[in-house]
Amino acid sequence: MGLPYGGAKGGIRVEPWNLTPGENERLTRRYTSEIINLLGPDKDIPAPDMYTNEQTMAWIMDTYSINVGHTVPSVVTGKPVSIGGSFGRTEATGRGVAYCVRRAVNHYGIKGDAPSVVVQGFGNVGSVTAKLLHQAGFKVVGVSDVYGAIYNPKGLDIPRLIAYVSEMGKVQGFNGSQDLDNKALLELPCDVLVPAALGGQITNLNADKLQCKIIVEGANGPTTPEADVILHDKGVIVVPDILANAGGVTVSYFEWVQGMMHLFWTEDEVNQRLEQIMGRACDQVLELSTKSKLRPRMAALRIGVSRIAEAKRLRGLYP
Amino acid sequence: MGLPYGGAKGGIRVEPWNLTPGENERLTRRYTSEIINLLGPDKDIPAPDMYTNEQTMAWIMDTYSINVGHTVPSVVTGKPVSIGGSFGRTEATGRGVAYCVRRAVNHYGIKGDAPSVVVQGFGNVGSVTAKLLHQAGFKVVGVSDVYGAIYNPKGLDIPRLIAYVSEMGKVQGFNGSQDLDNKALLELPCDVLVPAALGGQITNLNADKLQCKIIVEGANGPTTPEADVILHDKGVIVVPDILANAGGVTVSYFEWVQGMMHLFWTEDEVNQRLEQIMGRACDQVLELSTKSKLRPRMAALRIGVSRIAEAKRLRGLYP
Amino acid sequence: MGLPYGGAKGGIRVEPWNLTPGENERLTRRYTSEIINLLGPDKDIPAPDMYTNEQTMAWIMDTYSINVGHTVPSVVTGKPVSIGGSFGRTEATGRGVAYCVRRAVNHYGIKGDAPSVVVQGFGNVGSVTAKLLHQAGFKVVGVSDVYGAIYNPKGLDIPRLIAYVSEMGKVQGFNGSQDLDNKALLELPCDVLVPAALGGQITNLNADKLQCKIIVEGANGPTTPEADVILHDKGVIVVPDILANAGGVTVSYFEWVQGMMHLFWTEDEVNQRLEQIMGRACDQVLELSTKSKLRPRMAALRIGVSRIAEAKRLRGLYP
Amino acid sequence: MGLPYGGAKGGIRVEPWNLTPGENERLTRRYTSEIINLLGPDKDIPAPDMYTNEQTMAWIMDTYSINVGHTVPSVVTGKPVSIGGSFGRTEATGRGVAYCVRRAVNHYGIKGDAPSVVVQGFGNVGSVTAKLLHQAGFKVVGVSDVYGAIYNPKGLDIPRLIAYVSEMGKVQGFNGSQDLDNKALLELPCDVLVPAALGGQITNLNADKLQCKIIVEGANGPTTPEADVILHDKGVIVVPDILANAGGVTVSYFEWVQGMMHLFWTEDEVNQRLEQIMGRACDQVLELSTKSKLRPRMAALRIGVSRIAEAKRLRGLYP
Amino acid sequence: MGLPYGGAKGGIRVEPWNLTPGENERLTRRYTSEIINLLGPDKDIPAPDMYTNEQTMAWIMDTYSINVGHTVPSVVTGKPVSIGGSFGRTEATGRGVAYCVRRAVNHYGIKGDAPSVVVQGFGNVGSVTAKLLHQAGFKVVGVSDVYGAIYNPKGLDIPRLIAYVSEMGKVQGFNGSQDLDNKALLELPCDVLVPAALGGQITNLNADKLQCKIIVEGANGPTTPEADVILHDKGVIVVPDILANAGGVTVSYFEWVQGMMHLFWTEDEVNQRLEQIMGRACDQVLELSTKSKLRPRMAALRIGVSRIAEAKRLRGLYP
Amino acid sequence: MGLPYGGAKGGIRVEPWNLTPGENERLTRRYTSEIINLLGPDKDIPAPDMYTNEQTMAWIMDTYSINVGHTVPSVVTGKPVSIGGSFGRTEATGRGVAYCVRRAVNHYGIKGDAPSVVVQGFGNVGSVTAKLLHQAGFKVVGVSDVYGAIYNPKGLDIPRLIAYVSEMGKVQGFNGSQDLDNKALLELPCDVLVPAALGGQITNLNADKLQCKIIVEGANGPTTPEADVILHDKGVIVVPDILANAGGVTVSYFEWVQGMMHLFWTEDEVNQRLEQIMGRACDQVLELSTKSKLRPRMAALRIGVSRIAEAKRLRGLYP
Repeated sequence: MGLPYGGAKGGIRVEPWNLTPGENERLTRRYTSEIINLLGPDKDIPAPDMYTNEQTMAWIMDTYSINVGHTVPSVVTGKPVSIGGSFGRTEATGRGVAYCVRRAVNHYGIKGDAPSVVVQGFGNVGSVTAKLLHQAGFKVVGVSDVYGAIYNPKGLDIPRLIAYVSEMGKVQGFNGSQDLDNKALLELPCDVLVPAALGGQITNLNADKLQCKIIVEGANGPTTPEADVILHDKGVIVVPDILANAGGVTVSYFEWVQGMMHLFWTEDEVNQRLEQIMGRACDQVLELSTKSKLRPRMAALRIGVSRIAEAKRLRGLYP
Repeated sequence: MGLPYGGAKGGIRVEPWNLTPGENERLTRRYTSEIINLLGPDKDIPAPDMYTNEQTMAWIMDTYSINVGHTVPSVVTGKPVSIGGSFGRTEATGRGVAYCVRRAVNHYGIKGDAPSVVVQGFGNVGSVTAKLLHQAGFKVVGVSDVYGAIYNPKGLDIPRLIAYVSEMGKVQGFNGSQDLDNKALLELPCDVLVPAALGGQITNLNADKLQCKIIVEGANGPTTPEADVILHDKGVIVVPDILANAGGVTVSYFEWVQGMMHLFWTEDEVNQRLEQIMGRACDQVLELSTKSKLRPRMAALRIGVSRIAEAKRLRGLYP
Repeated sequence: MGLPYGGAKGGIRVEPWNLTPGENERLTRRYTSEIINLLGPDKDIPAPDMYTNEQTMAWIMDTYSINVGHTVPSVVTGKPVSIGGSFGRTEATGRGVAYCVRRAVNHYGIKGDAPSVVVQGFGNVGSVTAKLLHQAGFKVVGVSDVYGAIYNPKGLDIPRLIAYVSEMGKVQGFNGSQDLDNKALLELPCDVLVPAALGGQITNLNADKLQCKIIVEGANGPTTPEADVILHDKGVIVVPDILANAGGVTVSYFEWVQGMMHLFWTEDEVNQRLEQIMGRACDQVLELSTKSKLRPRMAALRIGVSRIAEAKRLRGLYP
Repeated sequence: MGLPYGGAKGGIRVEPWNLTPGENERLTRRYTSEIINLLGPDKDIPAPDMYTNEQTMAWIMDTYSINVGHTVPSVVTGKPVSIGGSFGRTEATGRGVAYCVRRAVNHYGIKGDAPSVVVQGFGNVGSVTAKLLHQAGFKVVGVSDVYGAIYNPKGLDIPRLIAYVSEMGKVQGFNGSQDLDNKALLELPCDVLVPAALGGQITNLNADKLQCKIIVEGANGPTTPEADVILHDKGVIVVPDILANAGGVTVSYFEWVQGMMHLFWTEDEVNQRLEQIMGRACDQVLELSTKSKLRPRMAALRIGVSRIAEAKRLRGLYP
Repeated sequence: MGLPYGGAKGGIRVEPWNLTPGENERLTRRYTSEIINLLGPDKDIPAPDMYTNEQTMAWIMDTYSINVGHTVPSVVTGKPVSIGGSFGRTEATGRGVAYCVRRAVNHYGIKGDAPSVVVQGFGNVGSVTAKLLHQAGFKVVGVSDVYGAIYNPKGLDIPRLIAYVSEMGKVQGFNGSQDLDNKALLELPCDVLVPAALGGQITNLNADKLQCKIIVEGANGPTTPEADVILHDKGVIVVPDILANAGGVTVSYFEWVQGMMHLFWTEDEVNQRLEQIMGRACDQVLELSTKSKLRPRMAALRIGVSRIAEAKRLRGLYP
Repeated sequence: MGLPYGGAKGGIRVEPWNLTPGENERLTRRYTSEIINLLGPDKDIPAPDMYTNEQTMAWIMDTYSINVGHTVPSVVTGKPVSIGGSFGRTEATGRGVAYCVRRAVNHYGIKGDAPSVVVQGFGNVGSVTAKLLHQAGFKVVGVSDVYGAIYNPKGLDIPRLIAYVSEMGKVQGFNGSQDLDNKALLELPCDVLVPAALGGQITNLNADKLQCKIIVEGANGPTTPEADVILHDKGVIVVPDILANAGGVTVSYFEWVQGMMHLFWTEDEVNQRLEQIMGRACDQVLELSTKSKLRPRMAALRIGVSRIAEAKRLRGLYP
């Protein structure tokens, strides 16, 4: 994505579901205090992952801030908006997937004014993707959740579906749609398939049955390496997760920048900048893919690795 | 206003009118040196108030900067533009009042294309408010200064009035207007009354005689608590000072941000951002007021207090 | 230009052409280490000059960054884009010259829709200036390089010329143009002459033969002081180098700002901001020149010196 | 005392006897965190006073140390020995009083090999003073505690008395001594009287009945200003508290120095250095007193004030 | 030992014998640079261990010092004396062992004016121990090196033996002594046996054959746990390694303190302070051992652990 | 001297005799502020030289201290004792010369119990040297000042002479002594000649007339290089200034150390440490001189240079 950001993981070996909120807070503050020399807006910037959330980030930020004597919002990302988080962060991943779908459709010259889309998963990523593609004139013909899938070849009314899900807690039973199982959903004919649920959904067992032209990976690792090869041989294009679902980390980066400037953007500004960065990254990957006849996944990796190598070469090794 | 900013006051017990400029400078530098551990762009950022001005801020900024070894414009706000102050700061309070008037007129559905306005006070706040509302198509029917008031039910030509005041030093005698006393001015029939002079102008003595529909407080505390109740009972809406005259502190915040980025905005950019922030704040207050049937003053307080409470709850108390 | 930036020079007494790359790197890192207390985004920010380049800046940035423990892109400018340099820096000087030409043509009311331009030098500055003026509808009638000049009174097709030069390594021989020597080029009749090659090109020997109306200095010091007087007496306006070729330092300033915000601008954003700053500076100089009957060079100096004096007066001398 | 140390007080408005140990710890850590910018081995160094103790100092030291990331023993004095406190601190005040008695006896030429001493108070100060004077060959003829006094004109066996008090909890009833009330104790004939209990013991009511030659003030303010004058007129010498009981603050200073060097002294070394500093201070005061015919209290003040004035004059006022 | 010092280990996974000196230096500097945030006179202070030496420490100290901008001798210990190392460091471990032998002999009331000693190992530790005990009037009857042992029941002339070893490279063949093997050496009758060679010398195989009264462990771990029990049952006292060979770390601590004061002690001063600290520690351990009927090893551990526990209890757990 | 101290000079180009005290103070504070990044107890530590004095050092110390926020005595040496200067600094150079004379007399085996000394100059250096040698049993037979010299072959009563000079302002006319001119003084027969006045006193004009056995240079450069050779050929030993008059810089170093420990030494402690360091340095130089047949001046240089070279070799060159 061209963000001036590295990446690392750290954690505590604990069963968080056994902690009271008070224990969780004290544990978080103690951990923050132990690693405080490694943290800072210019050093390492934690963000939430499994079993941590906005509240955890608020505690880390508060502990760090008290320690240095003034509020430092940029020491973490994924904070609540009310203490320096970014607008648009919650929707960012789904929004990025939608931008990617649109770039891919353009790049590969999908015909017709309303390309058809199937979205697996209707959580934070899938529902936002579906909503935005619907707004953009795409025809979302199938979606699923953990309980099952629905299908309407004329396109689902996504805003109404979202209201329905919010009330009923599932997609099946939605007026004017036909119920399917999840397996069948993936094999529906469509222009674009967006697997936005779990990893490992597209495997050597079902890859040759897929009838989509393009897959845009909203989840982490939805396609196995074997399936990747099968799809490539079939001519199905796979826009890889490291590109397609990078909207979240991009807005984390925006949150960091806003905190350092102490100037907070409107949601529109966040979304425009996200589109600019996602769009540029998609275009670079797809162009390199086409030009060098690389799968998009390989093109994305080549770009990423060559940027690191270039920076390393320029900076040298010191001392 | 949603600014990432706290507030505090500090001062020196001295009679500043007895100081020579040299004494004033040395006193300011000594004071800065004594509290220097508490100052900084991330800690406490002085701004001018009574008996201090741009020059005072320049001295504080210089003393702090020499102490840390490089120029730090963001350690104060209210600096001269030539050493890092913000464009648009002088007009900011009046401009904010004008934005507020426009939002209130829209919100409360004042009829007609040229709502009528009376402005008490024609200094830095009142004259800017009048000028901007005039430009926006409002009909400014009455204004006053310390020497008296004028009235023209067809609307005053504000640009010409400003030129007249600049030459004559007062508003009365302006061509095509009728002289009034200040008391009468407040009781003129109008859509919007902007008290932009001193505190305590609208009291239990005159509140029930007011003929405006909306009051937008440009001064600090122009309405007494008793008058507030009377007006409320009469159905006159009061947009409170903590909202309406926050344009000044908002541009101080912009000055701080610009100094930290070392990127200085044009006057247009300052004004656009001010309108965005003032507009959002007005809308939030007026909507809450309408929805919860709270006076706007109470709605503003509720929003402000709940933001602090929310942040406090999220951050927790540590240690 | 109104940039919050001072200026100084430092260097190593060495013959750089005798250094191996390894020696050059070690020397650069040692030098950086020796002066490291004086460097920093808030202190002194090196940029490349003679015999130093992007690679040198990368080494300085890396040495400084390792020393403080995290990457600090803003400690230098003129870095490669891949490690935090700014888009648009390479073209910045030529682009600034072109903006200046356009402002001068407007200010002095040059008639006709396609003012004619002669550009001396077709390197990084001259070719960019020519390209942008051509795009803006100017008629570039003559250009030169170290091997000679060409002329076409109907205007040269600059994009094609650039392609030609890129292939042939020189301007002469370009289809539809007539060859000239460099001396004759300067004396061509035109609206605007842009000397963008070496210093000392317009002297008391040729000044009175010039047939242009306006000179915009793209190079450093192309006009000698004696020539300046002759041109002034003839009525030829000289837009001075300290104004006209300040595009490069302005984008260096942008690079610094982007690095401190860790938010990197697109090339369009860089160019828009450059135009805004160059335009404002040109207008101020030309207006003062006209109003106070000063040569533009003197007007530029008066503005620059008075800004320093004003800041000095406001900040005072301490201790 | 010539220590490179200032003095100030700070505290929390709370009823400490109502706090649980946990509340006390959290309150102490919060307070430390709030004033942490003002603390440090080079800034302000808390020491215990009323309702705070070694444990309180340990908490402050720990809170500060965690905050800066490494153990900083010198940020407080009065710590437990096991985490960086000084040997000899507990006995320091009594030991200093004893040194002072010996210097005064020498200075004023008290005859006989075993000068007689009366000590009011047998707590931390009085018992140590009595023990050390006994060891030094003085004859301690009377001591008291809150329950009453005892007297033996041939001298009390102080080591045995200390053992007796440790068992019985009071001085009266000690074998071979005669019981007195506290009032009578002060009026016993003796060479040196050491009031080491409460303030305000020697007043205009009993001053003229005192039969001692020298008073060495172990307590804070045992002599009222009126009594001071009466005693002076009678020829009784009063060695003032600010000199005589400065042993405690002196060993606090030693604790600070040891912590900064991270080199801890043996109890003998502490006592030798204490004697050196107390002895020099006593001699200076008594010599000035004799030479300038000032009461010792005035001589001590003159020396103290003139040291501050001298330092202030040399350093100047800046800025 | 009561030193204000913790302990930790760090290293590089490399085969140092394969490094050129230049590689070794660059590797050491890189390692220092990578962990530099964790180093410092107040944080972590490296000292040499296996495959590192004075030169390594000099490189670490230089790298750190260049990084912070001034020479910081206290960031490492074990430096060469010429750049801030301590006099007496080389002999410190052997000297500490000798002090310990003397304290143990006194404590356990060994009869006769010249207690007999056997020293296993004649390297840096053993030869210094033997030399100092010889000077103190002990009769050193046997010593060994890797090649074998020698014995003289009347006592060896240690200064002459040292000269002999320095010339011949081994102890056997020394005039007036009888050759033995190492195994026999340990079983010689003597008052004190000092195993100062390798670990694991006294095991369940030979423990019951030992004829000494006291063992003072100069090496690390010379006695196995099983042997420890056998010796205890036999009534042989074992002064444990964590006490007896702590002279080296104690002088490292002195080196740190000297560097922070920038005041360097003479060798005599180092030795006196070492004796004071070793003596106090020996006495505490032996007294506790006798009083509580604990083996000295257990007594030493109890003292060490209880000090940590006491400090931990007093400081509390924060945050 | 083996001090952990470098050396450098800095200054202001000004005629200090033209400055008022206020100008001098402001100039000193401004200078301090300009170079403040280079100063500090761990960086560069100014000390007084020509036209600066204790007061100047107090101003520098105060300016620096205010800047960092707490008193930092160790940032300068040569401060007044009342704000952290060292006892014994005034006499330090003369005292060091006297120690040197005694070491040289011992080393070269000067016979007789009262070696005879001639001292040129009776200022701060010469009079202290004379006083201390007199106390040590030397026979001071001649001294001089700017007005002339005196001679008494049986030895002058130095304490009485000091009292005489303090009253009369010159040495001549002292009871029981014979007047000489300065030239004759140098040529008196004696064991030791101490030139402690100006440089360039012993030249090729008088070197061969000198009748002393040893010259100990109290002044800077009293012997010209030509004279040095002549004296060497005659067998006169010259103890060089860089050794003999290093007492002053040594006590400056003590002042620095005391300030960093915040523990101030008594005058006796200062003098003992001075003797220890001067004595060791003298012995090393004289021993090397004798052993390697180098003039003492060359031996001193060899020791100094080899220490720097050794440290440089050990630390290496980085980066």
